[in-house]
Amino acid sequence: MSPITRYFLYVTLLLPFLGHAENGSQLWLRYVPVEKSVVNKRTIDLRATHAMAQLAQKELENYWAGQSVVLKLDKKLTRLKEGYVIKGNISRIELVAAEPVGLLYGAYHLLRLQEMGEDINHLQVEEIPDYDIRILNHWDNLDRTVERGYAGYSLWKWEELPHQLSPRYEQYARANASIGINATVLNNVNASPEILTSHYIVKVKALADVFRKYGIRVYLSANFSSPALLDGLADSDPSRKEVQDWWNTKVKEIYQHIPDFGGFLVKANSEGQPGPQDYGRTHADGANMLADALKPYGGVVMWRAFVYNPSEEDRAKQAYQEFVPLDGEFRDNVIIQIKNGPIDFQPREPFTPLFGAMQHTAQMIEFQITQEYLGFSNHLAYLAPLFKETLDADTYSAGEGSTVARVTDGSIWRHKKTAISAVANIGEDTNWTGHHFGQANWYAFGRLAWNHALSSEEIAREWIHMTFTGDADFVKPIQQMMIDSREAVVDYMMPLGLHHIFAFDHHYGPEPWGDRKGGRPDWMPWYYHNADTAGLGFDRTTTGSNAVSQYSEPLRSIFNTIETCPENLLLWFHHVPWTHSMKSGRTLWDELCFHYDRGVQEVRGFQKIWDKLEPYVDEQRFSEVQSKLKVQAKDAVWWKDACLLYFQTFSNMPIPYEIERPIHELKDLKKIKLNMKHHN
Amino acid sequence: MSPITRYFLYVTLLLPFLGHAENGSQLWLRYVPVEKSVVNKRTIDLRATHAMAQLAQKELENYWAGQSVVLKLDKKLTRLKEGYVIKGNISRIELVAAEPVGLLYGAYHLLRLQEMGEDINHLQVEEIPDYDIRILNHWDNLDRTVERGYAGYSLWKWEELPHQLSPRYEQYARANASIGINATVLNNVNASPEILTSHYIVKVKALADVFRKYGIRVYLSANFSSPALLDGLADSDPSRKEVQDWWNTKVKEIYQHIPDFGGFLVKANSEGQPGPQDYGRTHADGANMLADALKPYGGVVMWRAFVYNPSEEDRAKQAYQEFVPLDGEFRDNVIIQIKNGPIDFQPREPFTPLFGAMQHTAQMIEFQITQEYLGFSNHLAYLAPLFKETLDADTYSAGEGSTVARVTDGSIWRHKKTAISAVANIGEDTNWTGHHFGQANWYAFGRLAWNHALSSEEIAREWIHMTFTGDADFVKPIQQMMIDSREAVVDYMMPLGLHHIFAFDHHYGPEPWGDRKGGRPDWMPWYYHNADTAGLGFDRTTTGSNAVSQYSEPLRSIFNTIETCPENLLLWFHHVPWTHSMKSGRTLWDELCFHYDRGVQEVRGFQKIWDKLEPYVDEQRFSEVQSKLKVQAKDAVWWKDACLLYFQTFSNMPIPYEIERPIHELKDLKKIKLNMKHHN
Repeated sequence: MSPITRYFLYVTLLLPFLGHAENGSQLWLRYVPVEKSVVNKRTIDLRATHAMAQLAQKELENYWAGQSVVLKLDKKLTRLKEGYVIKGNISRIELVAAEPVGLLYGAYHLLRLQEMGEDINHLQVEEIPDYDIRILNHWDNLDRTVERGYAGYSLWKWEELPHQLSPRYEQYARANASIGINATVLNNVNASPEILTSHYIVKVKALADVFRKYGIRVYLSANFSSPALLDGLADSDPSRKEVQDWWNTKVKEIYQHIPDFGGFLVKANSEGQPGPQDYGRTHADGANMLADALKPYGGVVMWRAFVYNPSEEDRAKQAYQEFVPLDGEFRDNVIIQIKNGPIDFQPREPFTPLFGAMQHTAQMIEFQITQEYLGFSNHLAYLAPLFKETLDADTYSAGEGSTVARVTDGSIWRHKKTAISAVANIGEDTNWTGHHFGQANWYAFGRLAWNHALSSEEIAREWIHMTFTGDADFVKPIQQMMIDSREAVVDYMMPLGLHHIFAFDHHYGPEPWGDRKGGRPDWMPWYYHNADTAGLGFDRTTTGSNAVSQYSEPLRSIFNTIETCPENLLLWFHHVPWTHSMKSGRTLWDELCFHYDRGVQEVRGFQKIWDKLEPYVDEQRFSEVQSKLKVQAKDAVWWKDACLLYFQTFSNMPIPYEIERPIHELKDLKKIKLNMKHHN
Repeated sequence: MSPITRYFLYVTLLLPFLGHAENGSQLWLRYVPVEKSVVNKRTIDLRATHAMAQLAQKELENYWAGQSVVLKLDKKLTRLKEGYVIKGNISRIELVAAEPVGLLYGAYHLLRLQEMGEDINHLQVEEIPDYDIRILNHWDNLDRTVERGYAGYSLWKWEELPHQLSPRYEQYARANASIGINATVLNNVNASPEILTSHYIVKVKALADVFRKYGIRVYLSANFSSPALLDGLADSDPSRKEVQDWWNTKVKEIYQHIPDFGGFLVKANSEGQPGPQDYGRTHADGANMLADALKPYGGVVMWRAFVYNPSEEDRAKQAYQEFVPLDGEFRDNVIIQIKNGPIDFQPREPFTPLFGAMQHTAQMIEFQITQEYLGFSNHLAYLAPLFKETLDADTYSAGEGSTVARVTDGSIWRHKKTAISAVANIGEDTNWTGHHFGQANWYAFGRLAWNHALSSEEIAREWIHMTFTGDADFVKPIQQMMIDSREAVVDYMMPLGLHHIFAFDHHYGPEPWGDRKGGRPDWMPWYYHNADTAGLGFDRTTTGSNAVSQYSEPLRSIFNTIETCPENLLLWFHHVPWTHSMKSGRTLWDELCFHYDRGVQEVRGFQKIWDKLEPYVDEQRFSEVQSKLKVQAKDAVWWKDACLLYFQTFSNMPIPYEIERPIHELKDLKKIKLNMKHHN
């Protein structure tokens, strides 16, 4: 293409955007209102009276440009749960659901088909959600800071509530509904007890009232010491009647205001949070007390398994050790919420071995959408491949095929309710997620919570299509960039099973040398990488911490043996000699170098892809993403140089000479102390 | 090679260095003292009594490991000037010179052959220096700061002189003598008048006494207003007898202390320095007054042609306009000192058209070894190719073959004395030049001042061999790196004839957007690059500033025509449309992008070359050069991003997508203000 031609193409393609400024606030919801002529040609017929059904009708009325649609409720179709059936031909579509919200989900399904330009004239769809509860966890504090939040302050304007309602509350609910999310935990798991005061409950109610019409239930993180902290009880021992009564009364009060209140999320006896062990009680004792209080109203307790102590024991083993003995002791409205990996939302971890290890207890996954360990909202990292990696991982806990998805979605062991959760990346930034591509991770979580069999590629394609454009010249390269992006982060941050070598506390940037006098060993990078002149990695084999024993066979043996352990988890399970020969024929050291370098090259490749597609993107989003990619490219080099120069002090081997050389000095990198907190 | 093998190779090759620490202080002078057994087998026979001849004998006594040598003086061989003849066979060498210093140069020639492992058994050498005066200009201030100095404070410890003599004075003299440099200007051309006080003259004498035995004469930069400033004369008008008398007296005083004093270097009526024009006199009037004072003692005036005013006239034209009309008016002991390019020591300039334009006036080149415009002592830039480019440039002033070298070395027009100068890059840093590879530029200037027909490659090979090792596995790649390095700097700083788009005043880093309210236009980058939406470059054609008219035909026409103008000077002579088709078929814009990117890639290539050769280099020099290359690699990206992002605001064309993308924001780069002065 000649430069002149390119220039004109450029100008011409930009023209459509000149009319309206773009800022990303519309997310993937860019339906175009239909013209009157279209409206006159078709009907949106609703045979139900529920408000949610009416909302479904309204969305189609406003945006559906196709044939007539009939929306029906059929309460007998309980197998559909919150799903729906769509049947249609060129002249008419029938959308049937058992629940009103199913009609809403069905309406968004139709609108998605329309947006994607799919065939809408031969429809035969049946969609049933894989999980009952598809929930976002907001780590939002009541002062509107957000723990591990990188998209501005909290959406929830507590000081204005309940009297003033930001229009973003409804936009938030609609966005969630459009991808099937039906629940939200409003506040941080490191919970302020204040949230349970009457003062706050009426504020929560105001939000719940907005969310309800989009099928979204509100949950709250509860501080286990609330009885003592709020009302001066002597303690919060779950075995004491006074404490139980306090919770019963509190729960009753909540349901008086919010009849569809979902329940509590609890982080107990973890990282300094109070819990039943403060009184010699078990996690089951604590969870059950709350479960009993919630039971009459249909509420649920999500009890986090993220517990570990600075003991001699490998941190990766502790959740399993704590919870497996309690299997069978939890009420049926308790679900154990388990992070996808045994440490903490790293760029790559094996699945937590607790999955599938408690057959009599409901389990749910906790993912992290917010990129605490993947470059905050500065790095483009499409997380569907990470989510899928855990969901599709075979636990072998009930034989082959016992994937994490299947041990949590009720396919293998039936439980009263199934759920899946993720820590949100949402804040009051105009574009919601800081990085425009962060929206894709919110989207992907919702879609996978609905249907964990969807592929990362398919979800990316949908999101790109609806968020930017459906032009294949744009979609294909961007889809590929997204698919590659998480592995790029792994490559330039911590390949081959390395983990948690981040800068202290804020977790932005590398600090493999990190150490704090008197600090907890299990918060120090050296605890995890174990670099020495012999090699690198955490020995979790039978001769090491024996964390492998928590996995079912054949995984246990596969992980335990250096020859069979997947290389992308090698340093997770083994302390590997620097000269160990990898499958590529390279030494471990050389392989490590190649991964770090590949990560850098990949990000530079993303920059090329993005810049080339400038004609397809509005100016603001183009330049904002471009800027973020620049930061990411710089950070990738920072990571590479920091880790290679540091580990080289142990390996004493040269960085392979075909690889781009470091541009930093280790001593300078060690001086970098970013002035960041763990909340915004 | 297996990593283990590589490791042992590494250790084994490092062993020779373990004995003595290396810091670069030895420069290229690493002769090994010969053992007694060798001394006993051969004689170094001197048939002369001059101190310099004795020094030659001593150097050979100490370091010559070959056959016997006879050193002879033959004053009749005047054609040799300071040169020498060496004849020898396997048993005996005869070294003959007309001047004692010729024996010293001959001795260093022999030692170089020995160091290089050349055949010393069949010698038939005749060396005659191309220039009479081979002089370094130190821009050293009396407070020991060095203008445009990047290797620490001045070597000259004025406060200790004349009583205390640093051992480095003699090391400096020996290093210069070893490459044929025979003169030095001790102080900055922006001269403090103080240097001519009696107080300082005795200090200068102390240095001259050290340098004399190495054949080095001392010169001083003179402030033209010295009579008024030092002794309260009403003015320093060169036409006034009182002023002339002052200079006569001052010169006499100097020669009383320093009988071989070389003369004055004068920067007059330039950048605020005083000069004869302050009194309505010409440069010739001023220079001649000083020349008359020096004449009785054989002294010389080097009068700088670096003059320009903030007028409407193209700065590049002003030296020519000022000096050509004065041709024939200068005394025969005046030499006009002309910077290699018409602007100011840029990474690339055409030669100054004044060269060859004054047939009745002696002319000398002023090069700049210190890298004011080539990354200071942070960037590896081997300057022999730059020096050669000017020396070999054909001025056509006396027909084809009238190279700058030949119009200044006396080949075409005979003058009383010929000279060549360069601004030194030397300071009190342990390694003398800040960057270890900066030593090569000092070395190269000396070698070319002696013999401008030497190739850059040959000089590099000598220097590498003597400074590091003669191992071909080291010499070949390092030589290639050096040869490529200056063009790499041009590529990432200002390719295609761009010039002077440096940060204000200190000249480190890019500032093409640079502007200062009320500042002189000819100190502003926009004055030089003239970027606009139409194109880029300074129109110096006949329809522009007509600077081309100062060049002889056919150069004038070649430069004037966009199709024939060399592309590496295109933007020097033309304002070129962004879409102009270059020889590569690319547009100007794309070509510009490719050059900037190539510069970055080249520096990264240098890093690879250097790192790979770690086994051949002592630890300290290896890591110091490695660090400098890291800075250079970072700076190259800085330059590329700054220039491309800035010029893109005019071209409005995309950076070709195959090129690595910028990692900076233009707005951030514009904020960079380095806290640097123009002296250390």
